[in-house]
Amino acid sequence: MFFNGKNLYIEWHEAAIPWLKLFAAEPSCKELTDCRENTLADLWRATLICERTLRDYYKPDKINIASFGNRLPRVHIHIMARFTDDSHFPEPMWGERQRADRPAAEDRAIFESKLIAALNKAGI
Amino acid sequence: MFFNGKNLYIEWHEAAIPWLKLFAAEPSCKELTDCRENTLADLWRATLICERTLRDYYKPDKINIASFGNRLPRVHIHIMARFTDDSHFPEPMWGERQRADRPAAEDRAIFESKLIAALNKAGI
Repeated sequence: MFFNGKNLYIEWHEAAIPWLKLFAAEPSCKELTDCRENTLADLWRATLICERTLRDYYKPDKINIASFGNRLPRVHIHIMARFTDDSHFPEPMWGERQRADRPAAEDRAIFESKLIAALNKAGI
Repeated sequence: MFFNGKNLYIEWHEAAIPWLKLFAAEPSCKELTDCRENTLADLWRATLICERTLRDYYKPDKINIASFGNRLPRVHIHIMARFTDDSHFPEPMWGERQRADRPAAEDRAIFESKLIAALNKAGI
């Protein structure tokens, strides 16, 4: 966990691509429509901020977003920076592997500081 | 297309599970953060209304939501009603098939009328 806000926290998913997971802080949210209004609003705003910051920093070919929770029934949103030469493109990361991993991005610290600054500025 | 709003339209994805696709009406939205504010707001509100209506009507075990667009780079959101005995559970629908399809729900017309009423009520 590198960001811990009032209504959500953010972790890296360990992967060769930049892949964030936003978790609702409320443990009782199985679905989005179980969440309180403040949690919902912050999840949505944070999703857009994560997308914007991933785009600006990593220049991906596409952003992918998903919320499943079939094994872990607690609201969490995956936000992935996808590249045409990544392991699964154009398949989703849950689909069939297409090729070897691309080299993992090393520069997480600067990205994290930019994302945290944007989230703080938005009051999340 | 069974719903055509100001900023988005909704289609069924042909599948054994209830599976909706929300498309931004703006053709130039490759990513969420490319969309106008009104489009974004309606996409989010419509996603929650779709989730709520799917939950109320089909009583799924889990809702799955995803926005990829790797092949079709135009914002569209998949909203799926998942069941523990469906073809892929607990995998995402893009993962490995686990078993045969469950019988497809036949009663789309009533669901559609309920969803359209809820979207209209919200001014979407």
